[in-house]
Amino acid sequence: MDAEQLRECGHKMVDFIADYYKTIENFPVLSQVQPGYLHKLLPDSAPTHPDSLENLFDGEVLQLDIQTKILPGVTHWQSPNYFAYYPSNSSVAGFMGEMLSAGLNIVGFSWITSPAATELETVVLDWLGKMLKLPEDFLSAGQGGGVIQGTASEAILVVLLAARDKFLKKAGKNALEKLVVYASDQTHSALQKACQIAGIHPENCRLLRTDSSTNYALPPDVLNKAISSDVSNGFIPFFLCATVGTTSSTAIDPLSALGRIAKSHGMWFHVDAAYAGSACICPEYRQYIDGVEEADSFNMNAHKWLLTNFDCSALWIKDRNALIQSLSTNPEFLKNKASEANLVVDYKDWQIPLGRRFRSLKLWMVLRLYGVENLQSYLRNHINLAKHFEELVAKDSRFEIVTPRIFSLVCFRLLPACKDEALANKLNDDLLNAVNSTGKAFISHTVLSGKYVLRFAVGAPLTEEKHVNAAWSVLQEKASALLDP
Amino acid sequence: MDAEQLRECGHKMVDFIADYYKTIENFPVLSQVQPGYLHKLLPDSAPTHPDSLENLFDGEVLQLDIQTKILPGVTHWQSPNYFAYYPSNSSVAGFMGEMLSAGLNIVGFSWITSPAATELETVVLDWLGKMLKLPEDFLSAGQGGGVIQGTASEAILVVLLAARDKFLKKAGKNALEKLVVYASDQTHSALQKACQIAGIHPENCRLLRTDSSTNYALPPDVLNKAISSDVSNGFIPFFLCATVGTTSSTAIDPLSALGRIAKSHGMWFHVDAAYAGSACICPEYRQYIDGVEEADSFNMNAHKWLLTNFDCSALWIKDRNALIQSLSTNPEFLKNKASEANLVVDYKDWQIPLGRRFRSLKLWMVLRLYGVENLQSYLRNHINLAKHFEELVAKDSRFEIVTPRIFSLVCFRLLPACKDEALANKLNDDLLNAVNSTGKAFISHTVLSGKYVLRFAVGAPLTEEKHVNAAWSVLQEKASALLDP
Repeated sequence: MDAEQLRECGHKMVDFIADYYKTIENFPVLSQVQPGYLHKLLPDSAPTHPDSLENLFDGEVLQLDIQTKILPGVTHWQSPNYFAYYPSNSSVAGFMGEMLSAGLNIVGFSWITSPAATELETVVLDWLGKMLKLPEDFLSAGQGGGVIQGTASEAILVVLLAARDKFLKKAGKNALEKLVVYASDQTHSALQKACQIAGIHPENCRLLRTDSSTNYALPPDVLNKAISSDVSNGFIPFFLCATVGTTSSTAIDPLSALGRIAKSHGMWFHVDAAYAGSACICPEYRQYIDGVEEADSFNMNAHKWLLTNFDCSALWIKDRNALIQSLSTNPEFLKNKASEANLVVDYKDWQIPLGRRFRSLKLWMVLRLYGVENLQSYLRNHINLAKHFEELVAKDSRFEIVTPRIFSLVCFRLLPACKDEALANKLNDDLLNAVNSTGKAFISHTVLSGKYVLRFAVGAPLTEEKHVNAAWSVLQEKASALLDP
Repeated sequence: MDAEQLRECGHKMVDFIADYYKTIENFPVLSQVQPGYLHKLLPDSAPTHPDSLENLFDGEVLQLDIQTKILPGVTHWQSPNYFAYYPSNSSVAGFMGEMLSAGLNIVGFSWITSPAATELETVVLDWLGKMLKLPEDFLSAGQGGGVIQGTASEAILVVLLAARDKFLKKAGKNALEKLVVYASDQTHSALQKACQIAGIHPENCRLLRTDSSTNYALPPDVLNKAISSDVSNGFIPFFLCATVGTTSSTAIDPLSALGRIAKSHGMWFHVDAAYAGSACICPEYRQYIDGVEEADSFNMNAHKWLLTNFDCSALWIKDRNALIQSLSTNPEFLKNKASEANLVVDYKDWQIPLGRRFRSLKLWMVLRLYGVENLQSYLRNHINLAKHFEELVAKDSRFEIVTPRIFSLVCFRLLPACKDEALANKLNDDLLNAVNSTGKAFISHTVLSGKYVLRFAVGAPLTEEKHVNAAWSVLQEKASALLDP
């Protein structure tokens, strides 16, 4: 680690990345390589003697390897033509935060290993919690608080574990087979995975059926019925996960009604707003998390749609001790006066891993440098672009909008001439592949009530109206070719 | 995300970080702030209107906030005077990799979401596996392969889950209460945490007692006895974790003998070489992982002592399907042709979270730019510095070396005038605090057989002999003050 070498190489890398963003539209947004492409391009083993670091940017490594070997295999999530899955935002402030974090390279498992890492995280999660108007008991002044997890998967896992252990403490540790989890069938697969990890029996995961009559939201009476049936069969309902903005179609579960049911059974109530949570910093969208006051935990991903580079998943919890009870260990080699005196937060006990990066820096830089109003405008702009796309689709009678658009995702499909659902599904799968293989736009799909549906999610920071229009042109062109070959 | 703004700010941040490394010795290595210090320095909420980004480096944010608010709360893991815990290496190549990863900001859960991210990871883990001379069945050509986890905690968790589910499949899912885990009492707390998460009953975790007679390695006969007793009581031994280079004292469990025992009972055998694994790329240290051929999984942290910025924990497994069986989910919205055709690796099914960063870039840059021989020299230099420190301690009769030094950790303590163990413990705790509060060096401690022991771990990239000598002077000076106030 030579400071002057870092300076020289760092400057070259900054230019490389800035140039990448300048030319990002030249790349096919979805990588077009074939499986195994890279294995053929790289040697079988690490070099014994190195390329000199001076050549990193002028010579072989960057020119030959990064440009010609790595980049062709990159799917460009930051491309303005990226409309797949949900976005993974990058920003100047977020990137600066990542650089500083990588530069300091601390491991902040306990307060003492870098007090700033712990304390900045507490402060910025309070800031973001206030931006979302979360109830005060989610903030750090009381018994709750916020923590940055890597992903929503980890957020849901840690609260599921906290809930599991709370219930097993009462019911006895052999009661695991009786514990039942509830959610809609639109809930992210992260819940299923968390259940697998926590040892919840698969047949005790009630993924309750939803349909278009509620726009794929979980009806409270369906939940009530399922719980009653389980209780009468001797099961123990212990965990409810509601979603605000599901992955497939941005369905919004009715938090207040569901939360009251959960509370009446003493269950843990978790709200997953991984994607849509960002929009809720706008007053006009805050209504969608009304009812969060009933929740025990709430999660949103700042790395999706809030300009904070991946990874940064914000989790708030009302009873931090429940997390600590499940996840704490206290080995001798980590003991220190500040922790023993209970004066500080040790985030190692709020998460799965021990080690943790200084991730609060990037979130702090985003909030500090962009400010609340700019972030709100940023989100509204994407929502307006999605609305614009929705209007384009609605105007073309060959297509239909499948579910109402709420945030920045449009769910739609192409209709075949004859009303054959199997044919419709095949047609839309073909359309998806045709569009994505152009490299001009990248969209994804889902299935709702048996219908193969195309997803167009606006949210890449560089996306403008012209990109939406261009993607729509590609879609129309490929649709024409498929319908009228 | 404006490319020119990124360029301008990025250059300034590179200079800031390079200057940080140039002046890193001016900071107290252990942060000297008091709990709650930052809360008092920052506003209660995020700004509505932002500081302009142009001011980031010239104005308020960097000058006032980073320099005067953040840095005082940083414990400087990259300081040459850092000798605590184990190191967390940063390097020019590692930092470049982090920058590029943050710049591309892709989320590589499935192959298709960036084929290069998956394929580069497979390639470089094969490279590193070969450098460690791991058996071929750990490499990707067969049924096994490598994967980058965030931390050793996650590595041990995922293999514990794979083992748990394999056994429950045979014994029935209600057999959880019968599953027993074995390890020495020197095993990292990550194992205990993984057991808590996986729902292994705490009383079924056999942390078998070790002592100085084996230098805190787990004696095979002790393991044998414990297993026999459990089997005769109807328990199911299913998981053995051995450690090469324990956290407290770099104890080395005898892999071959332990592995044969595990195999004879059909157990999963995991080897944790989180810290010492790096040294095993040197031929003269490779012997310490002899017996790894008996293991089902092997882990080392490239982010500790192999110049790869945190986080980068390398895990190899012989049967990748065991991981996938436990951790796979396959929601509709992630389905794609490459995955369905089984042509590719989807690392989402080898880990806890869904999303993942492009971490292979930094490991690739480290191996590609430094090469095997430079990395070996780098490790040997630290080991020689630790040997030098050990000699300094040995020459001062007021101190004793507590366990033999094998790698770059020296375990030692100050002896009180009278042979009172309680007094000795208090004395060394006082010495630790006295040294750390100078800010001139940062060491940590452990307890071995009731003795409070000081740990001096060499491994920060910038550490030279003069820093070791200076730390020893501080230790001697503070020892004199304590012994002869």
